[in-house]
Amino acid sequence: MNVEVISTGTELMRGQSVDTNLAHIARQLLPMGLEVRYHSTYGDVLEDLSGGIRSALRRAQVVILTGGLGPTEDDMTREAAAKALQRTLVFHAEEFSRIRARFGRLRVPMARINRRQAYLPAGAQIVPNPRGSAPGFICTSAGKFFVALPGVPSEMEIMLEQTVLPALAARYRPEKDFEIRTFRVFGLPEGTVDEALLRMVRRHRGLEYGITVRGGMVTFSFKASGHEGERILNRLSEVARRRFGSALLGDGNTTLEGEVARLLREGDTSIALAESCTGGEVASRLTDISGISKALLEALVVYSNPSKSKRLLVPQGLIQSTGAVSKEVACAMAEGVVRTSGATIGAATTGVAGPTGGTSEKPVGLVFIAVHGRGKTEVRRFSFPPERLTVKDRAASWTLNMLRLKLLQWRNER
Amino acid sequence: MNVEVISTGTELMRGQSVDTNLAHIARQLLPMGLEVRYHSTYGDVLEDLSGGIRSALRRAQVVILTGGLGPTEDDMTREAAAKALQRTLVFHAEEFSRIRARFGRLRVPMARINRRQAYLPAGAQIVPNPRGSAPGFICTSAGKFFVALPGVPSEMEIMLEQTVLPALAARYRPEKDFEIRTFRVFGLPEGTVDEALLRMVRRHRGLEYGITVRGGMVTFSFKASGHEGERILNRLSEVARRRFGSALLGDGNTTLEGEVARLLREGDTSIALAESCTGGEVASRLTDISGISKALLEALVVYSNPSKSKRLLVPQGLIQSTGAVSKEVACAMAEGVVRTSGATIGAATTGVAGPTGGTSEKPVGLVFIAVHGRGKTEVRRFSFPPERLTVKDRAASWTLNMLRLKLLQWRNER
Repeated sequence: MNVEVISTGTELMRGQSVDTNLAHIARQLLPMGLEVRYHSTYGDVLEDLSGGIRSALRRAQVVILTGGLGPTEDDMTREAAAKALQRTLVFHAEEFSRIRARFGRLRVPMARINRRQAYLPAGAQIVPNPRGSAPGFICTSAGKFFVALPGVPSEMEIMLEQTVLPALAARYRPEKDFEIRTFRVFGLPEGTVDEALLRMVRRHRGLEYGITVRGGMVTFSFKASGHEGERILNRLSEVARRRFGSALLGDGNTTLEGEVARLLREGDTSIALAESCTGGEVASRLTDISGISKALLEALVVYSNPSKSKRLLVPQGLIQSTGAVSKEVACAMAEGVVRTSGATIGAATTGVAGPTGGTSEKPVGLVFIAVHGRGKTEVRRFSFPPERLTVKDRAASWTLNMLRLKLLQWRNER
Repeated sequence: MNVEVISTGTELMRGQSVDTNLAHIARQLLPMGLEVRYHSTYGDVLEDLSGGIRSALRRAQVVILTGGLGPTEDDMTREAAAKALQRTLVFHAEEFSRIRARFGRLRVPMARINRRQAYLPAGAQIVPNPRGSAPGFICTSAGKFFVALPGVPSEMEIMLEQTVLPALAARYRPEKDFEIRTFRVFGLPEGTVDEALLRMVRRHRGLEYGITVRGGMVTFSFKASGHEGERILNRLSEVARRRFGSALLGDGNTTLEGEVARLLREGDTSIALAESCTGGEVASRLTDISGISKALLEALVVYSNPSKSKRLLVPQGLIQSTGAVSKEVACAMAEGVVRTSGATIGAATTGVAGPTGGTSEKPVGLVFIAVHGRGKTEVRRFSFPPERLTVKDRAASWTLNMLRLKLLQWRNER
């Protein structure tokens, strides 16, 4: 069965935003045995978009469109879908009340044009939008499944999960003839992972693997077909687990912050953070995980030297003698945040994020990360690619990874 | 003239990576007067990709393809292009020497499969790759311009800049017959902005506008054609400035954190932050801006109640009587962080990020944000859509916006 994803929005065609919806949709469909085969993008041009929908409905059985459902004149999806499907647009009074009620709840005046959002192709099934004003809709006809969702990722994602995936599952009862298993590894170079994978898959005919890296996180997957597939994948999973050890995080959705939060919860462990060069990114990523308030006491972004001394009791003399970017200050920050917060474990970052402030001895990209707990401090030195956002991001990831490894070690000691 | 961009790679169709090449190419072409009209994505399937190239060459004059030029079996671009263009693949001995020399320089053994990268469609012009092993190529025929570039963004970008854009400029001598100006507005609903824009553009024939919203930030652009274009855009810019006032941030690249950093620098103002529900996101966004270390003294993520009292001197009794999520605690946090850090301006956030912890009186999404400076405190109450990451993100944006407005006010008082 063929699946096509369509993205729409002139901002995509002008490079004002990057489409992440294709990737999200593809990841959600794969476990159901559905692979995206075609993807196309159109600006806000009625003929292009309706022509695109028509051609998608010719070559695919399932068409998932995102974008163009806003209230404004250049939001064309409703019109384009109606045209491509040869249906009229009809006003949904009930949906309009919902839209109006939402604006009331948020105490925002509703513009008159929001009325447009309640016009949907005749016979369409509404896809409720719990996070925004634009409803989505599903049209089915002649063995085809067409769905339009908003382009805003948070809205699209929940509507896909709550309404579209169940509708697809009910309709297609997909018989998977292949299985894909995805893993994540952090802390090993892509080339090393790739060579190991090559050796693993070499003996299995018809087995595919894919590998990709982003921000130091290597994601790889095995795809096996036929009735032997599951057995082969189970075996390969075992081999991968042995080969990569604690560098293996889990499946394709695992994140470093999710793992740290899980291990903190499991061990009923409290945590505090002291950030300099990461500027709050470690705390921000950790607080993305719900329930973290049980574990996270506080995070101090001690950006200035006086703040390091006053808040974390890092001796001023130490900062003067070794410099704020040093192994010693990283350790003192981690120890200081544990002592002053009363947390069980603490982590600290200090480094040169750049673009200015680097010296030949301490160049942009140099970062020290320390983890302290149970009376012991561990510190590591890193040289990240010298680009500010990369330094922040890599340093935040490595802080989370060092915390993860320490918490794993504690768990194994129990 | 129509431009089509094609992306290829099975990892894109499985959601293992996100395509950023379309956005980059679109941004580079726009100043030359070339707009991308079509974009399509294919996995590593020979027939799909060659069919896609054929259909692109039918509807567009310029086709830019990225991806599929690696050495492995699943890199199909050379074969697919040759098939679509009805050319044979020929071995380029000189290019092969270059590939081999590069491996020698990097002291990496070259795999035999890298030989595949030197087979290119007959008559193709090579696009040198200064950052990787895969050469790109340009094929022209019958008024069409086809170019294939690697999918790795850093390689693609430099090859586009060094070879492809000059070749395009030489071939098409594009006379820009349109101009685009982009603006950002924060703090107004999309519908309100749209209605205002509609009134502005109504009297100008042939003027187009686009509008898009992400995380509360509304980006809109005017596109004008003809020799009157620039004059009309200057006038509209003036009208927009008057109509949106301080809600207008600047051009399409302006960010809230960038504006706050700029105003802090201009006024030589120091800042400190106290974050609860935003969990460090305000600090992390502000420290994305280089040079912020001159202004940002510290940011305290006081996630627990004891931390609020101990670090910021928020009275325990106040937290008990009003709850941590209250106007009063937000004000006390902002005042406390200014007092304890010695900064000139401070901001504080407290709210219910969810998904748990909401009550009927204080539901998920309720956030108080306070800004304190020069002896005055301003506090606002918000009801954001009740989804954890949305609450964090919107609250962080509004904190930055309240800071921006306060700093603007101070600047105007000077």
